[in-house]
Order: sequence, then structure tokens, then C-alpha cells
Amino acid sequence: MFKKILIANRGEIALRIIRACKDMGIETVAVYSEIDEDSAHVHMADRAICIGPATSKKSYLNIDNIISAALVTKCEAIHPGYGFLSENSKLVEACELNDIKFIGPSKEHMEKMGNKSEAKKTMIEAGVPVVPGSQGSTNKAEEAFEVAKKIGFPVIIKAASGGGGRGMRIVYCENEFIEKFNMAKSESATAFNDDAMYVEKFIEEPRHIEFQILADHYGNVIHLGERDCTLQRRNQKVLEEAPCAIIGEDLRNKMGEMALRAAKSVHYTNAGTIEFLLDKHNDFYFIEMNTRIQVEHPVTEMVTGIDLIKEQIKIAYGERLNITQDQIKINGHAIECRINAEDPSKDFRPSPGEIEGYFPPGGYGVRMDSHIYSGYKIPPTYDSMIGKLIVWGKDRNEAIDRMKRALDELAITGINTNIEFEKALVSNEKFLKNQLDTSFIDKEMFNNKVTETEANKC
Amino acid sequence: MFKKILIANRGEIALRIIRACKDMGIETVAVYSEIDEDSAHVHMADRAICIGPATSKKSYLNIDNIISAALVTKCEAIHPGYGFLSENSKLVEACELNDIKFIGPSKEHMEKMGNKSEAKKTMIEAGVPVVPGSQGSTNKAEEAFEVAKKIGFPVIIKAASGGGGRGMRIVYCENEFIEKFNMAKSESATAFNDDAMYVEKFIEEPRHIEFQILADHYGNVIHLGERDCTLQRRNQKVLEEAPCAIIGEDLRNKMGEMALRAAKSVHYTNAGTIEFLLDKHNDFYFIEMNTRIQVEHPVTEMVTGIDLIKEQIKIAYGERLNITQDQIKINGHAIECRINAEDPSKDFRPSPGEIEGYFPPGGYGVRMDSHIYSGYKIPPTYDSMIGKLIVWGKDRNEAIDRMKRALDELAITGINTNIEFEKALVSNEKFLKNQLDTSFIDKEMFNNKVTETEANKC
Repeated sequence: MFKKILIANRGEIALRIIRACKDMGIETVAVYSEIDEDSAHVHMADRAICIGPATSKKSYLNIDNIISAALVTKCEAIHPGYGFLSENSKLVEACELNDIKFIGPSKEHMEKMGNKSEAKKTMIEAGVPVVPGSQGSTNKAEEAFEVAKKIGFPVIIKAASGGGGRGMRIVYCENEFIEKFNMAKSESATAFNDDAMYVEKFIEEPRHIEFQILADHYGNVIHLGERDCTLQRRNQKVLEEAPCAIIGEDLRNKMGEMALRAAKSVHYTNAGTIEFLLDKHNDFYFIEMNTRIQVEHPVTEMVTGIDLIKEQIKIAYGERLNITQDQIKINGHAIECRINAEDPSKDFRPSPGEIEGYFPPGGYGVRMDSHIYSGYKIPPTYDSMIGKLIVWGKDRNEAIDRMKRALDELAITGINTNIEFEKALVSNEKFLKNQLDTSFIDKEMFNNKVTETEANKC
Repeated sequence: MFKKILIANRGEIALRIIRACKDMGIETVAVYSEIDEDSAHVHMADRAICIGPATSKKSYLNIDNIISAALVTKCEAIHPGYGFLSENSKLVEACELNDIKFIGPSKEHMEKMGNKSEAKKTMIEAGVPVVPGSQGSTNKAEEAFEVAKKIGFPVIIKAASGGGGRGMRIVYCENEFIEKFNMAKSESATAFNDDAMYVEKFIEEPRHIEFQILADHYGNVIHLGERDCTLQRRNQKVLEEAPCAIIGEDLRNKMGEMALRAAKSVHYTNAGTIEFLLDKHNDFYFIEMNTRIQVEHPVTEMVTGIDLIKEQIKIAYGERLNITQDQIKINGHAIECRINAEDPSKDFRPSPGEIEGYFPPGGYGVRMDSHIYSGYKIPPTYDSMIGKLIVWGKDRNEAIDRMKRALDELAITGINTNIEFEKALVSNEKFLKNQLDTSFIDKEMFNNKVTETEANKC
């Protein structure tokens, strides 16, 4: 096994990786920016190297400095965590050049799956369902209408150069398509100076369901079941669950098979996640693959008993997977709440500062992954997530009750946090009934009236 | 379900019970002595009542005050935890008189199993193996020799009025029995003014193995596998494991069957523990039953996924067990280290005082059950245990590695603790190889030369 690993990250994930290394008897080297000198990951690693000033670009994104730190300390491998350089193929390249193992997939995997349109093409070829839509763009309404009829209504018309909802229309009825297309097109021409449009199936009340993949270098690929990450705020996940309690065994197997097919089609290695949208008709569509460990990986660990970081390290070292698909049993239910230093009264803007008191919850079925401590100063420079509260229960209801208790117990003073918001979330009636889609938080928690669907019009 | 429960205890077990109640949506009332005003259990309960001064007898052992607190706050049930009044049938009686449910077995169970010689008699009648020995005492060497031959050598001769090793002899060879009996007898006569002796089988290199029992009021009794509590120092458990890794499936089933038989023979209800000594020949003997929750219950929770405190509460309320013996699956391996405020350099004497800094370990597979916090003052009045560090791993080796890491991570400053001693224990070669018996800590960790066994003499 590796003797020494450098962790090219900070915060809770750096701690998480250091812990896995210690569990495996591997020495650890932390890297840190000047502002992170007092960070827990610095204290907990066997050695720590300063790699530059606070600005990420000059430290945690600085490949040269990270590689130098690894060479100086004779590390045999680098774990990138999530975020920062974790999906940057240049780091993989630099590792290869310097004979350091990158704990993750190959450069090719990363590039292939990192490019959304190329990934979609690859999936179509592999027979994995993707969100149906036009192959290229067009400014011709009749041409787009043919595509729309083929993929079936409702559809969404999007500006090729678009963003922020401009040049976008959802169309429920065939007889409204031409009119709406032309409206969207002229909006797009005005806004982006480009009238190229494309048409995609509009996924109704989607859930975000992702499958955890592990793949070794010998062709063994398994999935560890799914995570339900439907609860998002502005595309940021807020609360994640494993498994997804509304999915039956048949659908789970079908989606799992497709996730395996997706990973196998590119001969993927190490840990990865296949993300799907699941619509209200139980149809599902590949949206993207994450070629790294995810923030929400602990919920999978809690229900499978498999330490994902350890598996990543073992795979990178060249070990064979010693778990088969048959051996994966989903046991109980896990929920993760992301704890952020942010101010809900000020539109959740980051709330850095000094933590006066920190009392993590404990006891049976409770796991707190966090790098904070009493007296720790959260720098304003990085992500506002300061911890992840994870609970396990024998079923979803027990997990929810335990999460409520654990959130009550968790106390962080001196800064603002989203703890109260998470409490409101896990007490929401619709959440308890698991009646959720990706717009839930905006619609339900912020009372943002989303325009009544036009489905009834047809 | 109960609406409100009083917890007649303090420290980590009070917290543990409050957490289970909160998980179940049950209101909690804590009781505390004057010196425990700033204890975590006081803060965490919905309500807290002072029941007297620091001296246990005047507060945590004061049945009248505890019952009054329950009546005043309209609690429907009392959970006694472990220690204090947990095995005091007078509290059960007082509960009955005041129409309060006692969360534990009946008064009769407690009295029957609490008396060691009566418990032994009951077990013999039920066909559960007990340590074989003379029925009564005798001062006649020939009579005792007949008993010794019947139970088989080695045997131990004990003074009926004995204690502290005086009037005690281990005899390996038949031809030495009479001589040693007479030596022990005259020693006893001198020391205790009583020459009544008895003879028992000498259990060689015993392990302490205990089975967790759950029994409802409808005759359903299950066991949740065993715990290995062999590592003791002066009869105090130091480190516990579940399962016992040296027991095969057959022996486990056999011992489990006997544990069930023991519990069923007295129509036991609620949670209890059947303790056995297991000798090097894989013969096992009932030693006693604990009619309460045990300190080390979390290791069973970690490998079965069953919340024992919840089960206790549900049983006391009158619910049926909704788990069958078939459904109990032992998953992985768990280890608990008891963390004590004591000074190893001063023969482990209690080391109360103010905790300056407290950094509990975290991450995957780690559970810390503790009531301490930075700034908490440990009173000199009570037990020196300040927390329990519990880890889970997919097998014993993974659990040990994780325990090493977690002990490294755990930091408690301002007082002395046994953390370094626990570290030494989990790094000991013989511990790693699981070559243990109940004398291990004294022999191995303190280099106390135990007299060479006389077995070779015969």
C-alpha cells in the first residue's frame, strides 16, 4: 500500500481523507494556504506544507506548488477531494509526469465525461437514456417543431447561447409551439445576438438521483445504490438521502444497470457518480457524470458499510475490488444535512467569522464530519460549507427523527448558520411524505410562486 | 407511546437516554444533584429537577426525591440507566405504587437474578451450565476431595468466609488436594475464624462473554449476539468488543440458546445481559445476569443496527418486539474504549477537574458518547468514566485500526485520562492476535508476574 499521501484540499474533506489514511496506516501530508494555518487538517496530518496565499488560484488551485509539495515530502499519491482541482485533468497529467499516483480516474475519463455534450454523445452510443432533444441548433420553427413532436410534449425551447432563463419557453401543447418558438427566438436574438435554438424534453417534477460507482483497473465495476439529491437551492444540494425511498426494486435495478453501463462504456476507473433526472412517470435520463468523490458520499457509506475513500485509495494503488455487486446490501436509511456558515436573513450570504462555541451532536446513528472547533476562524475566502451532519436510521422515518434531534443538539455560536433552515426542511410535511422535486425548496420553503404549469391549457 | 420520561441518572448514559427519547418524540425530565447543575444532561433535557446535594445517597440514590420529581413533572415512566438505582428493586416498587412505569424488568426478576446464589440455583434447574462446585461448605478434606474428583481438576478451594485470596488454593493434581485443602483451611481458620470451605471448578484462561437479551411482555425473547468483555482491570471493564472474534458459529448458537433459556426460565422482560465465562476448552458457564442496560451496549447496537434504549422504552410501554431471532444479523465488528478521568501515573486514581479543551474524534465508523465539553468541571463525587469511544469496522482488524486513529484524534486537556493506556492496549501484539483472558491487563500491561501454573507438576 502507499506509504504517504498528499491531500490537495482543505476543510472537512481533507479531514475525511486524512482519517481514512490513518485508518489504513498511511502517512499524510496536508497542504494549506496562508489563511488556513490554523485549520484542523493542518493539525491532523502528519506533515503540512504551505502552498501559497489565501486566493485559491495561488494555493489550492496551484498545480505546480502542489506537485512540488508532494515531491519534497516524497508522497506517492495525491488525493484531490472534491472541488478545487478534483476534476482538473492538468493535475492528473502533472501527477503522471512526476510519477505520482492520482487518486481518481484517468485524464481521458475526466476529459470525456467533463465535457457535457461529449458525455451525452457517449451515453447515447452506449444506449444510456439521455434527455431527448435536437442534435444541433436551428432557427427554423418548423424544423424544431418536427423534433418536438418526435420527442413528445412538454418540451423546453432553449437559446443555444442562453442562460438565466432568457430565450427559454416551456411548451405543453403542440398548437402553441410555433408561436412560443418565435417568441423565444426573438428574445434570444435580442439578448445574445444569436437566434440559434434547440429543443429538449421538459422533465416534469424531476428528482435528482445519482448512483455511486466503484471501478478497479481490472474491469470490475459495481454500483453502491443511489442517493436522492433532489433538495437543492439554486442548484446547490442542501440535503441528501440514501436510498431514494420512492424507488422500487425494479426501477433501482434498471437505473443501476444503466449506471454500470455508463461507467463501463468509457472503461471508467476509481469512484464516480452517474447523475440522472427521474421524472414523475419513472422515466430517467442521464445528465452528467462526476469523476470524483462527492460531498454527499457519506450517506452511501452509512447504508452500505463501505468506506469510499479507502476504496478510492485501494483502487488507485492497483488493488482489485474485493466486493461484488451481489454483496452490496442497502441497510437502513441515511440523511445528510450540509451545514453552512451563511445568513438566512440575508439571502443566505456567507457568514464567515470566529466560532465561539461548537457542540457537535453525538450518540447512536449520528456522524458529524467537520473541520471546525471552538475558536476556529472561518476565512471568507472559501466555500461556506463548514460541516456535514449525517444520520442513520433503520428506515426513513427513524432517520428523519434522528436528524431532527441531532440538528437540535448541534450548536455553533459566533457565526450565522443554516441550521434553522435545515430544521424547517426536515419538519416540512411534504418532505416527511417524500413528495419532492428539484424545485421544492424554492417553491415550498421560500414561497416562490412558480408559474402555474400550462398543462391544463391543452 | 409515553409522552414524558424521567431519567434517573447522570453523565453519558443520561444523555444517551435523552437522545433516544428525542429520537422518539418523547419529552424528557433530567434530575441532577447540586454539583451537576452545569451537566450536559441538565441542558439537553426538556426540563431538569434538582434532587439534592452531591452525595449520591442524597440525590441519585434518593428514591423519594426521584419519585417526587417524576410526579411533579407528570412523567409516565422512569429510565434508571446503569449504576445508581438501576438494580434496586425498591425503586421498581416505588414506581408501581405511584403508577409510574419502570423501564426495566420487574421487581421479582431483579431480586431473583440479583442474588448470585439464587440465580445460580435457578440456572441449574433450567439446565444452564454454571461453574460446577460443592453445594454447601465443609471442613472435611475427604468430603471436599470427592467433590473435586467429581467436577474434575483443576479446582479452586475457597474459604466460605474468604476474600482477598486468603484461604484460597488452585489445585491441578489430585494427589495434592488433601494437603492444599488443609493449608487453605488452617489459613481460613486463622484469618476468618471459620474453617468452612468450598470447592469449585477452576476456569482456566477464561474470557468474559455476555449475551444481550431483549424480552417483551408477550413471551418473545431474542438475543442480539455476544460481547467480549475479557479486558478488565480489577474487575472493571476497560475495552469491549462485539462480536467475540474467536467464537465460531456453532458455539455462538449454543451459547445464545443457553442465554435465551436463562432469560426464559424466569420469564424475564426488557433488556438484560447473561454473562458467561468461556474457558480455553470452549466450555462455558453462567456467572450472572445483569437486569439493566450495560455500559458497553453500544457495541451491540453498532453490529446489529438496533437501538437498545428505544427497545427498552417500547417494551416498557407494552409494545411487542418487532424483531425476530432470524432477523438479527451481526454486521462487522465494533469496539468500545472507556475513557476515564484518571491518572495512570498514580495507579489510575480519579483525576477530576476542569476540562480545558475537548476535541472528540469524528468521521466514518466513529461514535463518541460523552457528556463532557470544553469548560466542564468533572466533580470528584462520581464514577471516573467521562465517555465511551466506539468504532465500527467491517472486521476486527479494520475496527482496531479505526480505534487507533480515533484515540489519536481524541484530545482532552486540563485533566488526566486513560487515553494513552487505551492506545497501548489496542497496539498490544496479543490483543491484535486476540490471545486474551481476563487476567490479560494485569499480566501483560502491568507485568504483574502471576505465579506459574502448577499444571506441569502433575
